[in-house]
Amino acid sequence: MRLSRYFLPLLKETPSDATIASHKLMLRAGMVRQNSAGIYTWLPLGFKVLKKIEQIVREEQNRAGAVEMLMPTIQSADLWKQSGRYDAYGPEMLRITDRNDREMLFGPTNEEMLTDVFSSDVRSYKDLPKMLYHVQWKFRDERRPRFGVMRGREFLMKDCYSFDLTPEDARKSYHKMFVAYLKTFQRLGLKAVPVKAATGPIGGDLSHEFHILAETGESEIFCDKRILELDPIGDVDFDSDLSEIVEARTRLYARADEEHEGWNFEDLPEDQRVSARGIEIGHIFYFGTKYSEPFNAKVQGPDGKPTAVEMGSYGIGVSRLVGGIIEASHDENGIIWPEDVSPFDVGIINLKSGDEDCDRVADELYQALIAAGLDPLYDDTSDRGGVKFSRMDLIGLPWQIVIGPRGLKDGIVELKHRRTGERENLSPEAAVAKLTG
Amino acid sequence: MRLSRYFLPLLKETPSDATIASHKLMLRAGMVRQNSAGIYTWLPLGFKVLKKIEQIVREEQNRAGAVEMLMPTIQSADLWKQSGRYDAYGPEMLRITDRNDREMLFGPTNEEMLTDVFSSDVRSYKDLPKMLYHVQWKFRDERRPRFGVMRGREFLMKDCYSFDLTPEDARKSYHKMFVAYLKTFQRLGLKAVPVKAATGPIGGDLSHEFHILAETGESEIFCDKRILELDPIGDVDFDSDLSEIVEARTRLYARADEEHEGWNFEDLPEDQRVSARGIEIGHIFYFGTKYSEPFNAKVQGPDGKPTAVEMGSYGIGVSRLVGGIIEASHDENGIIWPEDVSPFDVGIINLKSGDEDCDRVADELYQALIAAGLDPLYDDTSDRGGVKFSRMDLIGLPWQIVIGPRGLKDGIVELKHRRTGERENLSPEAAVAKLTG
Repeated sequence: MRLSRYFLPLLKETPSDATIASHKLMLRAGMVRQNSAGIYTWLPLGFKVLKKIEQIVREEQNRAGAVEMLMPTIQSADLWKQSGRYDAYGPEMLRITDRNDREMLFGPTNEEMLTDVFSSDVRSYKDLPKMLYHVQWKFRDERRPRFGVMRGREFLMKDCYSFDLTPEDARKSYHKMFVAYLKTFQRLGLKAVPVKAATGPIGGDLSHEFHILAETGESEIFCDKRILELDPIGDVDFDSDLSEIVEARTRLYARADEEHEGWNFEDLPEDQRVSARGIEIGHIFYFGTKYSEPFNAKVQGPDGKPTAVEMGSYGIGVSRLVGGIIEASHDENGIIWPEDVSPFDVGIINLKSGDEDCDRVADELYQALIAAGLDPLYDDTSDRGGVKFSRMDLIGLPWQIVIGPRGLKDGIVELKHRRTGERENLSPEAAVAKLTG
Repeated sequence: MRLSRYFLPLLKETPSDATIASHKLMLRAGMVRQNSAGIYTWLPLGFKVLKKIEQIVREEQNRAGAVEMLMPTIQSADLWKQSGRYDAYGPEMLRITDRNDREMLFGPTNEEMLTDVFSSDVRSYKDLPKMLYHVQWKFRDERRPRFGVMRGREFLMKDCYSFDLTPEDARKSYHKMFVAYLKTFQRLGLKAVPVKAATGPIGGDLSHEFHILAETGESEIFCDKRILELDPIGDVDFDSDLSEIVEARTRLYARADEEHEGWNFEDLPEDQRVSARGIEIGHIFYFGTKYSEPFNAKVQGPDGKPTAVEMGSYGIGVSRLVGGIIEASHDENGIIWPEDVSPFDVGIINLKSGDEDCDRVADELYQALIAAGLDPLYDDTSDRGGVKFSRMDLIGLPWQIVIGPRGLKDGIVELKHRRTGERENLSPEAAVAKLTG
């Protein structure tokens, strides 16, 4: 993409309510723009990151055997009255009356709706297990929206729902999602800590939150240091028994504030105790028949008797992750994207647009990188070098190639690594080779 | 995908309000399920088609130079009061009050919002032209939702907005979108007729609707037969002058009911007049400064004076297209997908699941097709052959491979082409070769 054809409106000054790094940086880097309290437009740069994260989440859900579908944003209030959550949900639920005076709402989650769809279509235990998910915009009318996309009102969430015949099978589905979550966060360049969680208003008896550690986290996390040192998970056969992977991560102590048991944590040797702020990026629940009973989601069991299905639900805050990744990965100059979620692979800075040599080499590099399957952002504007440097640092692409008349005299360009700041002088061909090799 | 792991809940009986083919077939084939009037869940099969269409729309938008972003579904009423459309839009607009008694609405379109975003960020004529688009769920509270996803209340739409300095430049942007639309519909296997349209409540003085001809269309189309006989458009350089391509399609007569001029149509020789029902699948507008004036979306012109930008907007009904394609392509046995939007490339029918040979050959074929980059749906259930045949016809994949014990004795399987019904006996290897060749 040529910057002159892109839409990257940087902000010089951020509003005073932007107090955390990700909120400030997303505004400054032209990733989002606020439309109303807690409601954002995703400008092209932010949108690209959002889509990359969504795609990684999707791939790992598919790998775990979940099947994608899509439920609408607007739901009938009747469903929520049937589950008893219509009144319980309180003012966070955005309630709507349509032109025919029917009570509707903008869905904050989809347990009711999917259980309803499922119950009308699945009849036999032979159709189980099933895991179905969607990635859809949700709305929670937060009392105090803040921290940019981290606690917005309209937000993108992946929610998956599992349906099993027995509690043992449900536990297997739970394990699949647990492992899929670890793999997802790994690919996003994040170290996620699963902490034992209370089940809250969704109900059930088995639940974990996934947190990343960052100074601006909303929760206090207490965990055994060894959790942070576990090896990454490699290839997994999701049809195999996954309990060992799960247990290696759940038998070590890890809790957020509400669930923290001081006496248990203090049993650990002092140098093994970690307490830090955490940002919740995922939450998984097993809740048995809490929804299948009221929605009559029953299948004929092997014994011929109708059996309420065992369910779980599994959420990842996709839009929140954009902020979470920035909280975990930035410096005083701006964002530092992990390679797999970076909006572009590499930035090209032409220090002297209009100069024949600079333009030619920059154009050739741009074309060569595209031909090699990379996605470069080419700053072909007439801005000054200083503006181009700081803009490229701010938006945080992993690599920068700087083309200037002085270097070109010796046939060289500069390759800069955003995270380490390391710079290297080399020929344009060598730069392409290094990036694509 | 193995059918046993998928979620494909077919419907035997369709509700009486499903009167047109696409509505019936989408329900029967387990593509969608209605949640409330005009609000649908996209089940996995329908979701896949929706995403394929969205992706083709996206690719052609990008090729034309438009940049993708994403605006929220919930908008502030203030924006619409500023443009004067808040009262004008009437009861089709879903109006919402949030917990702080602010007036909000579920966006039916985004002219106001994007003009507002644009005006706060673009300052100079040097930043123009710009074309920005998004693909987002919209809501129109139809008085009488019907025809399934063809006239639903919550629907997926691609809307693009162009910003130019002069009317001449705006016309160039209009031409780019005009050609991008023709190419998009071509790739979707549709013959779209651009008809001159009234500009209606959006305003402006240049507008076209794109219609496909189908018996169940809501509009009456009158056009010169030669429009239907034009050659498809090949590769296009969107930076070149596109007026010739556009004029070749607009100088021939084509109008929908309201705009029809009988005297003009009747000038055509009788065998050159086509009158037929049409389904609107796209609509493009040039509307000048209708929104840029009230939102003060001005740039500094080359003369240093502030100039209101010239705008256009360009919509494609993405979810509506799913129904539109089915209306244009089905038979008495079910849907017939054009290859590029088919949810799977090929169906594998194992006529005797549990039989060692049949299972082995079906598994091998399934793996070979995946290895070759195809996306097969493998019916590995224990249902009877008749059930499998009619299910595969109903969901309309372009190709079917049938594996039965009788054929396997001679080392052959049957390859069936869904559209023509042609069948061919050949070895499993030859079947793979034919599909991937």
